[in-house]
Amino acid sequence: MSNTGSSEEIRYDYTNVMADRVGERDGLSEAELEGLAEAVRGYHDEITAERRSGELPFMDLPQRRDYVEGAAGFAASVRERFENVVLLGIGGSALGMTALQSALNHPFHNLLDGEQRRGPRLFVVDNIDPVLIQGLLDVVEVGQTLFVVVTKSGQTAETISQLMLLTGVLKERLGNGMREHVVAITNPERGALRSIAKAEGLVSFEVPEGVGGRFSVLSPVGLVPAALAGIDVEGLLAGASAMDKRLQTGEMTGNPAYAGAAVHYLLDVKHGKSVAVMLSYSHQLRDVADWFRQLWAESLGKSRTLSGDEVHVGQTPVKAVGVTDQHSQVQLYVEGPSDKMFTFLAVEEPGVDVEIPGEHLEEEACVYLGGRRFGELFRAEREGTEIALTEACRPNATISLAQVEPGTVGGLLYLLEVQTVMAAKLYGVNAFDQPGVEAGKVASYALMGRSGYEAERVEMERKLKGAKRRSV
Amino acid sequence: MSNTGSSEEIRYDYTNVMADRVGERDGLSEAELEGLAEAVRGYHDEITAERRSGELPFMDLPQRRDYVEGAAGFAASVRERFENVVLLGIGGSALGMTALQSALNHPFHNLLDGEQRRGPRLFVVDNIDPVLIQGLLDVVEVGQTLFVVVTKSGQTAETISQLMLLTGVLKERLGNGMREHVVAITNPERGALRSIAKAEGLVSFEVPEGVGGRFSVLSPVGLVPAALAGIDVEGLLAGASAMDKRLQTGEMTGNPAYAGAAVHYLLDVKHGKSVAVMLSYSHQLRDVADWFRQLWAESLGKSRTLSGDEVHVGQTPVKAVGVTDQHSQVQLYVEGPSDKMFTFLAVEEPGVDVEIPGEHLEEEACVYLGGRRFGELFRAEREGTEIALTEACRPNATISLAQVEPGTVGGLLYLLEVQTVMAAKLYGVNAFDQPGVEAGKVASYALMGRSGYEAERVEMERKLKGAKRRSV
Repeated sequence: MSNTGSSEEIRYDYTNVMADRVGERDGLSEAELEGLAEAVRGYHDEITAERRSGELPFMDLPQRRDYVEGAAGFAASVRERFENVVLLGIGGSALGMTALQSALNHPFHNLLDGEQRRGPRLFVVDNIDPVLIQGLLDVVEVGQTLFVVVTKSGQTAETISQLMLLTGVLKERLGNGMREHVVAITNPERGALRSIAKAEGLVSFEVPEGVGGRFSVLSPVGLVPAALAGIDVEGLLAGASAMDKRLQTGEMTGNPAYAGAAVHYLLDVKHGKSVAVMLSYSHQLRDVADWFRQLWAESLGKSRTLSGDEVHVGQTPVKAVGVTDQHSQVQLYVEGPSDKMFTFLAVEEPGVDVEIPGEHLEEEACVYLGGRRFGELFRAEREGTEIALTEACRPNATISLAQVEPGTVGGLLYLLEVQTVMAAKLYGVNAFDQPGVEAGKVASYALMGRSGYEAERVEMERKLKGAKRRSV
Repeated sequence: MSNTGSSEEIRYDYTNVMADRVGERDGLSEAELEGLAEAVRGYHDEITAERRSGELPFMDLPQRRDYVEGAAGFAASVRERFENVVLLGIGGSALGMTALQSALNHPFHNLLDGEQRRGPRLFVVDNIDPVLIQGLLDVVEVGQTLFVVVTKSGQTAETISQLMLLTGVLKERLGNGMREHVVAITNPERGALRSIAKAEGLVSFEVPEGVGGRFSVLSPVGLVPAALAGIDVEGLLAGASAMDKRLQTGEMTGNPAYAGAAVHYLLDVKHGKSVAVMLSYSHQLRDVADWFRQLWAESLGKSRTLSGDEVHVGQTPVKAVGVTDQHSQVQLYVEGPSDKMFTFLAVEEPGVDVEIPGEHLEEEACVYLGGRRFGELFRAEREGTEIALTEACRPNATISLAQVEPGTVGGLLYLLEVQTVMAAKLYGVNAFDQPGVEAGKVASYALMGRSGYEAERVEMERKLKGAKRRSV
């Protein structure tokens, strides 16, 4: 039953963000939380109305049976034929799948033999460093590879240039066999990738209209590659759907997404916690923290409110991994500036556990470990870190999953998406645009000599060269 | 010649941190920089004197021929015998080797065939999640594996528990053959791992006295696993040594480490840039940013100055990767709070480059890309991001390497270590301790029932249970 997604298997515990735990300067008072309850109820009504009028299509993805069946059906029909699946995409086209792969497949999936793996080897190629591109070609036989090309706009420079390369390589190796090796996931109507898909007769899937990249993991963007990698996409959506039901209340005290939004918002604007650390005490969930980095940063990091006031808001999301970062970041977290809040990701029951055998017991440093399990030590270190942060008046909360399986992972991703939408309401910003990336994009088009950017090019080159250089 | 380490192949360009580029509120004035020059000279004299009196042994590692020869000799004698090298260590025992592996070996090293690889497959296991531990055992045949166990204290719980496990597994599979499969790198005299190494007759190397984990990458801690992985450790040290010579001046304008320290310090304390983003426009250097996270956070994140004043200082280091994070973090970086400074890592000449063929040229979005190289696009995107950040008054600097090879990587790591030591002088804190991790460690010992922590255990359990829980 667990993989049909009992969303109750996800708990958000915010005990340690309260002033009675970490003091009044750093923690929330009852009054602060209660003072926000009315606003949250109002925004909940707004969200519900917007959803009904079709303005928030990402919220309906858990109910899109057509998407899950399309993805699962396609995967079943081709999975056996390929040794490798290569996802070409960047940002929202890549981070969701990376999170799903880490969470739900073997930690060394690509090193397993074919019989041990649930699907082909999977490569998510979300950069264009030529060293990486050449490296990929060294280890992937293109004739045994399915390339999944994902770009919402259909013209993302990084992804399109990768597509151009593999088209060339596939033609050279296989003549006109490209059609069997490339799948397109893009806008249903517009953009270069859609045109190419039509011209070449590629299998294609849509990025639903109105669903931004960072909210697209439960659409074909995440479902198609996940299904190809052998992940139970039905379970994923069932978990998201169960979470959706749980998030129907406008009362923070019953809605973990709204509680999370309120906690983050209040800690930032009232208590100066401008950094939001997601500290995953799960090797499997570590890349959920990376996916969340984009979700939180791009949705909330804005210079203007919806009404046009200049604000420059947005917490800086930081990915951290327990226990690893105890030996790297915890010194700063405990003693440095009190400008951070922490969200632990915890798992109640590890999918497997391993005993620490009673070896070297002549050493005192080994005695307390012998006969215990790694899962116990892992938990003790998380709890120890939680205690240390709390003692140091550093507000921290914990999202715990009963186990890591498709249902809880789907529920967790959906919860964090809704948390982000509510947080944007509280900050008064547009969760769904990203005007700040335009300037860099234009500059690089200009530097690359793209047609229509000639004037910008002259300007850019002047800027790059004009300054008094200081270097050593 | 390049891999003998011409340190001039590393440049630090801080043009875009100055007020004439990003404005007076966010950028440094000439006066601010000049005002620090005298202090930097004085601290340079202190550092020089401390080094002479043996208090800064990490600074002499580039000259330790004995270490490099020991590592290279050992590696040559055993490398052919093993399919896998597994590094068991955490924090400073792991991050340096991870950075070296990413920088100097093939991006898919572990997937190459034996003949294509320069050394065994390499696994750095710096966590204790049982899912990861079991996963490792699934893909590594212990009979074909050399385990390199690294802990400075000799009693790090995570590493010792991993050692206990593999001792058990090795005994079970190989009887008394453990000796051939385990190498210890630890304190020369003290600690559990040293005792075990003596008792079992293991090959061992020393973590030099007085060299902390985060400053140990150029000691046997980094050199032994790097040599096993086929990395040119001679070249690495030659580059560090050349950089060391270049850092002999106390004048910021001629010393990139001191310039970097001054820029970070002034931007933090005078201009509120409490977050230091290292933005690697190199797939190979991305884990240098992770290694730097520990170096910067643990060395500078302190609650008290050397004279005991309560301060709570320390920038929050953030790892980012270009171009990937343009599609995740740049929106926040450009429009969000102006609380960040940026250090680009750039590479002038990629080791390989790949042409983007002229495919799909009927699409306007493909025309400007056809016939160009990925290296060109990668550079245009970095420069575009640099321009966009500068236009948005976000101070940014660039460390560029002529190429990524052992000499420049060794030089870069050494530069950043010395930058950190100078920064600690400017903040007035001890770069070499980490008192803030003790509380969490004690708490987890207590929760695990380690002997001697009984009183703490009672207290901890009270704390974990005592609070009014708030959860949803």
